[in-house]
Amino acid sequence: MPSTLRGNLAVGQSGGPTAVINATLVGVLREARTHAAVKNVYGLRHGVEGLLKEDLMDLGGADEELLERIRHTPAAALGSCRRKLRADDYARILEVFRAHDIRYFLYNGGNDSMDTCQRIADLAEREGYELRVIGVPKTIDNDLMYTDHSPGFGSAARYCAMSVRDMGRDVEAMAGYDRVALYESMGRHAGWLTAASCLGKEHEIDPPHLVYLPEVPFSEERFLDDVSRCFVKFGFATVAVAEMLKTAEGEIVGLSEATVNSDSFGHIIVAGSANYLARRVRERLGIKARANRPGTLQRSAMIAASAVDREEAYMVGQAAVREALGGASGVMITLERTGNDPYRCTTGTAPLAAVANAENYLPRAFINKEGNMPSAAFREYAAPLIGDPLPPVGRFEVKEVEKRTAVAT
Amino acid sequence: MPSTLRGNLAVGQSGGPTAVINATLVGVLREARTHAAVKNVYGLRHGVEGLLKEDLMDLGGADEELLERIRHTPAAALGSCRRKLRADDYARILEVFRAHDIRYFLYNGGNDSMDTCQRIADLAEREGYELRVIGVPKTIDNDLMYTDHSPGFGSAARYCAMSVRDMGRDVEAMAGYDRVALYESMGRHAGWLTAASCLGKEHEIDPPHLVYLPEVPFSEERFLDDVSRCFVKFGFATVAVAEMLKTAEGEIVGLSEATVNSDSFGHIIVAGSANYLARRVRERLGIKARANRPGTLQRSAMIAASAVDREEAYMVGQAAVREALGGASGVMITLERTGNDPYRCTTGTAPLAAVANAENYLPRAFINKEGNMPSAAFREYAAPLIGDPLPPVGRFEVKEVEKRTAVAT
Repeated sequence: MPSTLRGNLAVGQSGGPTAVINATLVGVLREARTHAAVKNVYGLRHGVEGLLKEDLMDLGGADEELLERIRHTPAAALGSCRRKLRADDYARILEVFRAHDIRYFLYNGGNDSMDTCQRIADLAEREGYELRVIGVPKTIDNDLMYTDHSPGFGSAARYCAMSVRDMGRDVEAMAGYDRVALYESMGRHAGWLTAASCLGKEHEIDPPHLVYLPEVPFSEERFLDDVSRCFVKFGFATVAVAEMLKTAEGEIVGLSEATVNSDSFGHIIVAGSANYLARRVRERLGIKARANRPGTLQRSAMIAASAVDREEAYMVGQAAVREALGGASGVMITLERTGNDPYRCTTGTAPLAAVANAENYLPRAFINKEGNMPSAAFREYAAPLIGDPLPPVGRFEVKEVEKRTAVAT
Repeated sequence: MPSTLRGNLAVGQSGGPTAVINATLVGVLREARTHAAVKNVYGLRHGVEGLLKEDLMDLGGADEELLERIRHTPAAALGSCRRKLRADDYARILEVFRAHDIRYFLYNGGNDSMDTCQRIADLAEREGYELRVIGVPKTIDNDLMYTDHSPGFGSAARYCAMSVRDMGRDVEAMAGYDRVALYESMGRHAGWLTAASCLGKEHEIDPPHLVYLPEVPFSEERFLDDVSRCFVKFGFATVAVAEMLKTAEGEIVGLSEATVNSDSFGHIIVAGSANYLARRVRERLGIKARANRPGTLQRSAMIAASAVDREEAYMVGQAAVREALGGASGVMITLERTGNDPYRCTTGTAPLAAVANAENYLPRAFINKEGNMPSAAFREYAAPLIGDPLPPVGRFEVKEVEKRTAVAT
């Protein structure tokens, strides 16, 4: 048994918000209250920025009703940041830790945040300051290694799956008027979320017909061939694309267009692959095409939060406090799947040092041979994470009324 | 009492799909079964196109379980169209009516569809063919006159309200990184849906901070001033814009950019106002800005269907059959609000001839003095239509921890 470490606990949120990141926060707060060694809980306002500015919120007294509301509030209730630590930050961080007797540091984020955690753990060890540092996973991109999946992904995945399914019904209904519908998903490097667009698909005619992932080199010719084939077969086509796609030569799809729109500060604005590809469909196939680009709505929409995801987000928050109080440090909480039928998941830990420097891409086995659709293995992996089955939809079986006139064409 | 007219009933769906258009269809089907005078119900595949092609589906035998699924399926289960009738279509339509003894014609759509209904009613009268024609309202744009509102609007409005609320939390959490978030709503001419983006707003800091409607001439200078002011006040700004905005001179905002992207068939593609305005914020204010453009997702997302809207959509379907069987023809079913606290609504009728040639814009009283936010009167009008209250969200009251160090800036 480790000796009891008495002190305050600081918790921060970092990186892009999610629909369930606050469920993790509430898991931390409720669990922390059950441990006498935790004197109080401080929230870092805007992550490590709040630490550097000594901008802390006293969360110890938050009442239950508010916590319950916060648990169902999307985005990051403490404020988030994308601040990388610099060499001259460390002395300041230690000063703030000491001034407030912070002995537990919990940081909720993705790869970059785990790197921040690791640096803070190293700092404490180097300086002989007793501190327990726990990384808590969170990313809609699902690109953290050493965890089966990450909280935030399941809800964003549910959003994509439902949106693409409904978008498909829309274009199917309008076939002959709208022809090709594209959905642009977040995720520049890892294709997990884009792949999740297929989770509402049951039949071949169901959307999406085609899925283009960042892991697969993109060929415009192949894309146009694929779309044409779908169009001939169904009379319409539905396509999910990652917001950034690259050709085999490493060129960003649609970037040349975006460069024209570079702003006065010299930033190149990537307009998003879907707008560009919709235009190419119109220009080269002569078919009407529309791009739907919900952007950040995907990551913070409570509208589609997954119950499984919210539950697990809460669970990793609790587990982080328990691990810290149990003596662990320098680790990230992981989710470990223990069964798929029925789906079951528990928590574990992985060394921060390993997690911080790895990025988890969609494996080849999760993509079909043609590189334009997630595989059955991916579906098996991802389906439980989006929670309750999508509400069922129906299609009339066509019972044609016999024709009684000479039909005009 | 009108004499009983025995024959078949044809029902069609027309124009842009909605989340609840199939609830109307199921209302028609279930009600029709209770009337012995209706021999059978035929669905027009893709609206009047199906009529012209004699492409009819026998809906009489659809089982209850399927109907219940269809009722919760977005978009148009029969297929929709945007076909305007031409002079040479009429003889053909009459031929199909006669061949199938169609005596009831119910058409579910917006302004254009009501025009189609009117023409078909005129045709039948001119030719002495006994036919009862009922228009059934449907439009997410809410621009039909003589009805308090239209089925489809409430669900799309709920989608906008929830999306903008959550988008606002996202940009608030990322303040300092993301700065300005724009949401682009459907609705080129009438601003009802764009205005609905404010229905999740409770406090001044809540999104949206600014709403730009097609009814108000757009000034880029005023827009940039508005955004700057919000940014100074809150550290971020959230903006809802209609997909098409025009200046006082009648120029489409962002069109010059879109013209560059005109396709090989000579169509000018309006890229959407939000992309353009986000770029202008970056260029002219030097602030990071993102455009979210869910496009057609807004109109067909079951994800956010309003229970009130779904109920009313069903109700207008039932009412259409009852009116037709009761002897009415040449009318559109309307929704009549009979109370707002609690909200209550019943159905009525309006002459097709009046409805077909009118478009309902947001009245001046529904827009604030500055022209950049819907008024309290609009909120009172629209709030009941989105159904259940949005799930409550929470914000920590900031309880600052007292600073104990010389704070670095």
